[in-house]
Formats: sequence, C-alpha cells, structure tokens
Amino acid sequence: MTYGELAAARLQEIAEMSEAGPGVTRLPWTPEHRRALDVISAWMEDAGLEVSLDAAGTLVGRTPAMAGKPALLLGSHQDSVRSGGRFDGIMGIAVACLAVRRLREEGARLPFAIEVLAFADEEGVRFPTALIGPRALAGTFDPAVLDMQDAQGVHVREAMQAFGLDPAGIPALARQGEEVIGYLEAHIEQGPVLEAEGRSLGVVTAICGISRYAVTFSGETGHAGTVPMAGRRDALVAAARFVAAVSDAATAIKDCRATAGRIEARPGVVNAIPSEVGLTLELRAPSDEMRLDFQSRAEQLAREIAAQAGVTVQVEKTYEQPAVACDPVVTDALSRAMAAMDMPALAMPSGATHDASAMADLCPVGMLFVRCEGGISHRPDEYASAEDLDDAIRVLAETVKNMGLPGT
Amino acid sequence: MTYGELAAARLQEIAEMSEAGPGVTRLPWTPEHRRALDVISAWMEDAGLEVSLDAAGTLVGRTPAMAGKPALLLGSHQDSVRSGGRFDGIMGIAVACLAVRRLREEGARLPFAIEVLAFADEEGVRFPTALIGPRALAGTFDPAVLDMQDAQGVHVREAMQAFGLDPAGIPALARQGEEVIGYLEAHIEQGPVLEAEGRSLGVVTAICGISRYAVTFSGETGHAGTVPMAGRRDALVAAARFVAAVSDAATAIKDCRATAGRIEARPGVVNAIPSEVGLTLELRAPSDEMRLDFQSRAEQLAREIAAQAGVTVQVEKTYEQPAVACDPVVTDALSRAMAAMDMPALAMPSGATHDASAMADLCPVGMLFVRCEGGISHRPDEYASAEDLDDAIRVLAETVKNMGLPGT
Repeated sequence: MTYGELAAARLQEIAEMSEAGPGVTRLPWTPEHRRALDVISAWMEDAGLEVSLDAAGTLVGRTPAMAGKPALLLGSHQDSVRSGGRFDGIMGIAVACLAVRRLREEGARLPFAIEVLAFADEEGVRFPTALIGPRALAGTFDPAVLDMQDAQGVHVREAMQAFGLDPAGIPALARQGEEVIGYLEAHIEQGPVLEAEGRSLGVVTAICGISRYAVTFSGETGHAGTVPMAGRRDALVAAARFVAAVSDAATAIKDCRATAGRIEARPGVVNAIPSEVGLTLELRAPSDEMRLDFQSRAEQLAREIAAQAGVTVQVEKTYEQPAVACDPVVTDALSRAMAAMDMPALAMPSGATHDASAMADLCPVGMLFVRCEGGISHRPDEYASAEDLDDAIRVLAETVKNMGLPGT
Repeated sequence: MTYGELAAARLQEIAEMSEAGPGVTRLPWTPEHRRALDVISAWMEDAGLEVSLDAAGTLVGRTPAMAGKPALLLGSHQDSVRSGGRFDGIMGIAVACLAVRRLREEGARLPFAIEVLAFADEEGVRFPTALIGPRALAGTFDPAVLDMQDAQGVHVREAMQAFGLDPAGIPALARQGEEVIGYLEAHIEQGPVLEAEGRSLGVVTAICGISRYAVTFSGETGHAGTVPMAGRRDALVAAARFVAAVSDAATAIKDCRATAGRIEARPGVVNAIPSEVGLTLELRAPSDEMRLDFQSRAEQLAREIAAQAGVTVQVEKTYEQPAVACDPVVTDALSRAMAAMDMPALAMPSGATHDASAMADLCPVGMLFVRCEGGISHRPDEYASAEDLDDAIRVLAETVKNMGLPGT
C-alpha cells in the first residue's frame, strides 16, 4: 500500500465522523469533531508525534525531544461545509501526518521541530466567524468572537467550553515569530486548473485578496406596455450591461476574478419596468494592486453604463481582505521538491481563503495544491486520487527537508 | 366653468370614495364601489340618461325613449389599483357623461341610443380576474370566475351577491352585435408619449398584444475565487447579455416593447458563480405579427447567447393575449372630430389593456387617449389637466355625432 493509498483509506474512514445526511458535515466543537480528533490523534501518534489539544481546539502533534527548537508547522482544518466532501481541509492534515511518518521512516534528521496542526474551524459554517485556531497562534484572535452565536443560539464560548476547552487560555497561545520557521499547507485546489493542465500538484504563489460590493442601480419604474423603450430608465437593463461588462473586463486579466452572485429587481413584477436593481459583486486578485486597479475599472464601468442608461448607481464596499503573498523561501522549497521528482512546478494563485491566510500574520507561509476531479469541492462528490495524494506526501516530505537546507 | 373644469371637480369629489390611505383605493363590490355608483348615477341623470345596474355590477345610463334602436356605448371602469390616482378608468366615465350632457344641451339629434357604462372591475386587484362587465356584454364571461377568491377568502359570487347582484343573470347580459354600433373609451394614456409630443389627445390604433415568458438560464455553480473566468458557465452573465440584447432589439422596432421585470440568481450568494437564473420577459406589440416576429428573435438571441456562454436556456410562454385592432370607422370618427377642432390626430398604440380589449369581441371599438403628467399612472400623483379633459369631452361629443354620419 502506497502512502497515497493509505491517505485515501484514512480519508474514507474519517469521512464517517459526520452528521447524518449526504457527504460530510463536520462542524467545530461538536461530537463529530471529537470523534475526528480521536482519529487524527492516532494519525499523529503513528507519525511519532506527541499530541495535545490547545485552548482554541487545535489538535497539535509535535516531534518529541525538540524543546526550545523552532518549529515548521504543517496543517489544515478538520471541519467541513454542510454536505461537503472528504478532502477539503482534512486532506491537508492526513498528508502532513504521512509526510512526517515518511520522514521518520527515512530517518531524516532535521534541525527544527515539526508540528502538524488540525485546526477546528475554517469554513465558518456553524458560527459567523472562522480561523480561530490560526488567529490564536498568530496573536490576531479577537475575543469578541466568543460572543457570536450559532443558529441554535449557542455562543462560541459555550461551544468551546462544552468541548472541554478554556477560551480564557487563547491569548496565551500566541507564538513568537522566532519560534516558527514557517507554515506549509496542502489543500485540494477546489478549482479546475490543475486538471486542465494535466498536473497533480500546484505551488500557490498568493492567496487572492477579496473585495465585495453592494451595487445598486436606480432608475424609474413604469408600465411595461405604456412606456416606449426609448424613454426608459430601466435599472435592470443597466445592471445587465454592467454584469456583462465586468465579466468581460475580468476575463481579459490573468488571475483576476469578478462574480455577480446575487441580483434582485424591484418592484420585481412581470409588467413593470424595474426601478431599482441590487446586486453583489465580488472581486478577487492575487495582488492588492491588481484588485484595486480592477475595482477602479469596475466603478468606472458602473458610472459610464448608468449615465448612458439615464439611471444612477451606488457602489458600496461591504468587505475587503488583502491578498497574502506566499513566502519565496517556502515556495522555492516546494518547487525544488517537485523538480527533484521531475514534476514541473505549476505556479498559481489561490482564489479561496485558507488557514494559511491567517497564519501569514505569524510566519512565512506556503501552500501546495492537489488536483481535484472536475474542480469540484464543497460537494459529496469532491475527489482527489490516491496517486495525487501520494505525490503530495512525497513533495511535502521533500519540502520539509528543503526547509532545512539553503535554497539554490 | 368649462366642461373640463366640471369633470376635474367631479373627479376630485369621487376620489373621496376610497379606502383610507394614500391616493384612491376603490375595489369592485365594496362599500366604496357602492358610494361611487351613487355619484356616477347622478352624473348620468344629469346627462339625461336612465340609470340601471346590470347583473355584472355595470352601471348603465341610456338615452331614454330609444327602445329597439342600436346603441353607441361609451365608458370605462370605476375601480382603481391600490393607492392609485384620480383618473385611471373613472375619467372615461366622467368625460362620457359630460359629452352626453353637452350633446343634449346642443340639442343634437342622433339616429341611435347612447349608453354610458361604468364597469365594476378592470384592474384585477381584488380578484385574480378582471373585465367581468365587458365580458358579460360580449358573451365571453366564464362562470368559473365566480369561484375565484380574494385575499380574505371571499368568492366573486359572494362579493357580487353581497352587493345586491344576481350572478345567475350574467349570461343574459350578452348583447347581439346588431344592437351595438360600437364602443368608445376615453382613458388617460398612462405613458409619456402625448406629453413628449405636446398633444392633449391621441387616437389609439390598437391595443397591444402581450406575451409573457419565464426564461431560465442554467449553467454551473462554482467558487467565485477558484474557478478562472475563462472556464465559467455563469448563468447570470448569460442572462445579463440576454436582457441587454433583447432591450436593444426592441428599441430598434417602433412600438415594440420588451421588459424583464423580475430576475433571480441561484444559489444567490456573494461568493458563488450563479448556476441558474430565472427571469420574466414580457413583450408587447400593436400587431400579433410584430409580436410573434419579435418572440422568434428573442428566442434566437437566448439560444445564441446561451451557446456562447456554455449554458442552456429554457423559454416558456406563461401568458398570451392577442392584439386588438381599433375599428377604422371609430378611429376615423375620432380623427375627423379632432381635425374639426384643429387638433392634428396623433395615432398611437395602447400598451396597456383596457375594457375596450374585451368589448372588441362584441363590436367595433375605439379609444381616445388623454395626456397625463409625466406619463405617471397607478400612483396618487396621477394627473390630467382640466383643459385636456375639456378637449376630450368636446372630441368625444363630436365623435358621437360623426358616428351617425358617413365618413369622408
């Protein structure tokens, strides 16, 4: 059995730690989380790691007898979306444990400790927050989060306490930069690029920044029969031209993404000209410069199209998250590992946010993407092959060794 | 006081026959309807007409001593939308009564009877049906309508009985074609054309036919960050291109109207590519040929745009109503009346449906449009000036006389 096959079998087994229903539903600080941690503890011990649970609910497996040494951190999150798949998050923990086991079996001697981290919550499904574990380590945890509630009215604090944790201990989890060499995360791509390129693995260059907007076009309603086309101030026609123009503009820029996800027309009846249309626009780009340039371009398009249509437009930013550049030393270590195995490194941005986004506030981060079938994620049919998992384990192990060696 | 000023004063007075709240709310077979009929009865008697209420709730005022003679019918509807204005519908009744009074004061001798009709329900606000009165006269009334309910669960039958009517008498209301010369309706334009052209009155050439569609674009959802623009099958981008293209195509065709009134994207979240977008499309055109031609063009655009975007599209017709051509004899009588008063006749289609739509199944119909401020209707600030009402009364009276004379 290859390491990849073992990883696939383990992911199959831990997928059972789920609420009933299709796919995997494993939310933080639940009985399913507890059962998953028992399984992950066994993976960590199997890799020779000493296991502990920190105050944020992160399961930590650390190489023994390396007290005082800085640590290279590997990991990802144990939680899933509702009716999600068997790979998102948990795969990064499974392959990290097997990479460490492989290094141990090889007898690799490293000048630093290794920690594998199984974070509690990355998806933000149960509570309107996420990334408590990595933020605790990075010292960016906001205690106000503890007062947030889930759909049943349970506060984060209560959920953590019921899980046996002491949230008062979270601030003390913050690491000092000198204690940490870097953070390395393997994750399924959740997109179609690697499959289209025929590669099993990709090296992430940056985690895209995000801007979200509420865009509102305001015109004038009127009877769909009595108002001639020429005199209309139709908010939906203007919004439609904007959605198409922004899509075209984003398509012309490599690695830039623009999505209108929600749209609503008012009054919203079959025989009335829409007077107001609200839509959401989300921009993602691997650099803040690209994102802010595109934001200006989108705002300009909105104004031009509105003026031409005789309507007005409001563009309100509702959310912003800066891009996170992956560290050149870590990405170089990843690329050298792949080169050593005759895998040409495909550099690509991550369009999605990951635990690494929060870890970047603490230390250099790097990410390894693993091909997933059809680019599908957050669904029960999410799939990565045992062969690709094996590639990921070998590359991770080699990368860990490279982190102890000077780059070329 | 001019006839126009009298009409304006009467419309001000009858606007009080309304539910409480902004503007006029007068629904069929209600206490407000009853009070309005008392007022309209007085208008009819003031014009020398004999008043009766038929089994459909239509108040009928007929010139006396013309038994056995064919009748020229004038009228419109007494009901309003919720929070509507003082002119839609009721203005046609008011100016018809004053045109008849004017003819009587002139001592005009006509070879036919005149009837002024005040229909109960044209707006279809209280019940999911309308036009019971004109359909009863045309013999096209469907008794199944009596079982429809309003929001309080009251059936049409019960509402009519509570109003003192016997719905069993409706079928007997059907007129024979030879009893009726024609139907002539004055109505506010409810659009901006007359105001833009600087005319008080317009002669309606046809009442537009209507087609309504449910259009559904189906693509594939995906993460707004991880799926590159180039490979997307974004249902909203396709729908947006379609809305813009249909608007452009309709704008290029005189008197053709296309409106997307409602739109919804699924899953409808800020960070997911829309997999499915449903929208309503309504087409209106003064001839069925134009409407069906445009329908083919719209369906072709939908297919082309969907193919280009890698999505599929379904176009389902949900409603269809043929166009009604106004009768050349009636429109000629209207045009001659306007010419005699040095008003050049502006010929225009009606984008909205009217009582005349249903009356066309019985007899030749014609309509006179009256300018309304800003093209505004169905709102408390709906307005037509006393001067324009006066023009309408004079033209209506002259047209009635023309109907008794051979055309040029």
